[in-house]
Amino acid sequence: MNFCSHCGQSVVSRIPEGDSRPRYICDGCGTIHYQNPRVVTGCLVTFEDRVLMARRAIQPRHGYWTLPAGFLENGETAAAGAARETLEEACAVVEGLTLYTMFSLPHINQIYTFFRAELKAPEFEAGTESLEVRLMREDEIPWDELAFPVVTDTLKFYFEDRQTGRFPARHRDIIRLPRPSRTT
Amino acid sequence: MNFCSHCGQSVVSRIPEGDSRPRYICDGCGTIHYQNPRVVTGCLVTFEDRVLMARRAIQPRHGYWTLPAGFLENGETAAAGAARETLEEACAVVEGLTLYTMFSLPHINQIYTFFRAELKAPEFEAGTESLEVRLMREDEIPWDELAFPVVTDTLKFYFEDRQTGRFPARHRDIIRLPRPSRTT
Repeated sequence: MNFCSHCGQSVVSRIPEGDSRPRYICDGCGTIHYQNPRVVTGCLVTFEDRVLMARRAIQPRHGYWTLPAGFLENGETAAAGAARETLEEACAVVEGLTLYTMFSLPHINQIYTFFRAELKAPEFEAGTESLEVRLMREDEIPWDELAFPVVTDTLKFYFEDRQTGRFPARHRDIIRLPRPSRTT
Repeated sequence: MNFCSHCGQSVVSRIPEGDSRPRYICDGCGTIHYQNPRVVTGCLVTFEDRVLMARRAIQPRHGYWTLPAGFLENGETAAAGAARETLEEACAVVEGLTLYTMFSLPHINQIYTFFRAELKAPEFEAGTESLEVRLMREDEIPWDELAFPVVTDTLKFYFEDRQTGRFPARHRDIIRLPRPSRTT
């Protein structure tokens, strides 16, 4: 950040009075520009004994498999954002959204949430951000070709919980550097 | 937003190619400035049969009672942020944080999370953002003097769940306009 988005003057980075962290401050109009983590929201969608997986048509992790998810928008609930992303990436209409996993990824300033959801009908296709979309049984999950640790963890939780039929919401911190992209 | 925070030129609001929502765009350097909800994180802190409540010394809702909470910072996990806010607002060191409630508040572009946590010792005092801090039994909670609906809901969930000893994580949407501030 170099300029004040309100008045256009140059900003400086310093700790405001009464604060403990450096912020971008505009000495022209006095605005303090806070920067905060963003929320990614998505769905673990099931139909009978299968899970809806999408193969990414975009970077990062182009070509890897993921659960439908994306950045939460202003004016949107976390569940509505998860359903929207599922519609956009997998052209699938879901229902019965229940909070399932929440991850903190402080190294990339993200909070990830996944909701369990059900397909109304086995109708889906690849959206513009997906190469393909498939319903997969547990033994079909490409564990070595998953896009992100949050996807791996959410799927592992799900198949574990499915054995008991109880799906408590879970929170986990993922403290690690981003994995290097493989050459695609 | 009037100016590009990267290069200082004026921004315009329009829908970028391949997107579906208007964004602030800089035609000078090409930066698209996304604006997303922020995360508020806090603790429902217990010691024996009591809950740690703080009375707000700041707006909004000055003078009303709340659970310690505040904006999640970059580079921080949700649980670490909740513990930090509890230390800042109530000078209390907590342990055993467990995700408990998550709220979507689309009208103010916020996601609120509360963790259950325990006081290591009944040691606390008002931080700079609090007028006073107290441990309260259920029958001492000032239900008509709580700062925010998310606080009321989290406390209600807690006292209800305490009867069974099971505390499943819960998600709720709060769809409403902000309540008008009472004259203080």
